[in-house]
Amino acid sequence: MTVKLVVMYTHPDDPAAFDEHYLGVHGPLCQAIPGLQRFETGRIEGALDRGEHSWYRIAELYFADRSTMDAAFASPEGQATAADYGNIAPRGSRMFVETVDEDG
Amino acid sequence: MTVKLVVMYTHPDDPAAFDEHYLGVHGPLCQAIPGLQRFETGRIEGALDRGEHSWYRIAELYFADRSTMDAAFASPEGQATAADYGNIAPRGSRMFVETVDEDG
Repeated sequence: MTVKLVVMYTHPDDPAAFDEHYLGVHGPLCQAIPGLQRFETGRIEGALDRGEHSWYRIAELYFADRSTMDAAFASPEGQATAADYGNIAPRGSRMFVETVDEDG
Repeated sequence: MTVKLVVMYTHPDDPAAFDEHYLGVHGPLCQAIPGLQRFETGRIEGALDRGEHSWYRIAELYFADRSTMDAAFASPEGQATAADYGNIAPRGSRMFVETVDEDG
């Protein structure tokens, strides 16, 4: 049963600097996390429901199961990623755990 | 450049009935949308940041590009999916468009 960490970033003050750090530094930190199966990130371009453009970026980190995810974030690589998140995530950014039902 | 429709559902009044409809009816409607490359959905189990458990379910529909996505939702299958969304999405549910930067 695949689980994902879904990270939702609010709008940074300097989007270009944020993306440069995100794709150049934070992404590689994520990719180094042990047990990671898949990493995906992208920019939210807007709301299709005409509501608030609440989020700037989403990242999704896939693991085989919850215990693998928990071990991953307890590892040195996971801790380094969490520390970098603490430095870069704009106020109001969120992290959720998702259990994938259907994928294909 | 892959684009995704990211659909975020708030908590339904009856989660079991919602999931039964979602996985039995809404998912197949999504899967029938022309141009869909990938469909993924899962339940949000909780917030890893100890914040509010804001969302119940996420769904992600992947398309090759924005024009393919727009054509998909203009199709009869896309319109049927949108109509079903209107019937089932709890108040406060959201739909965003994401451009994927990195995937692997």
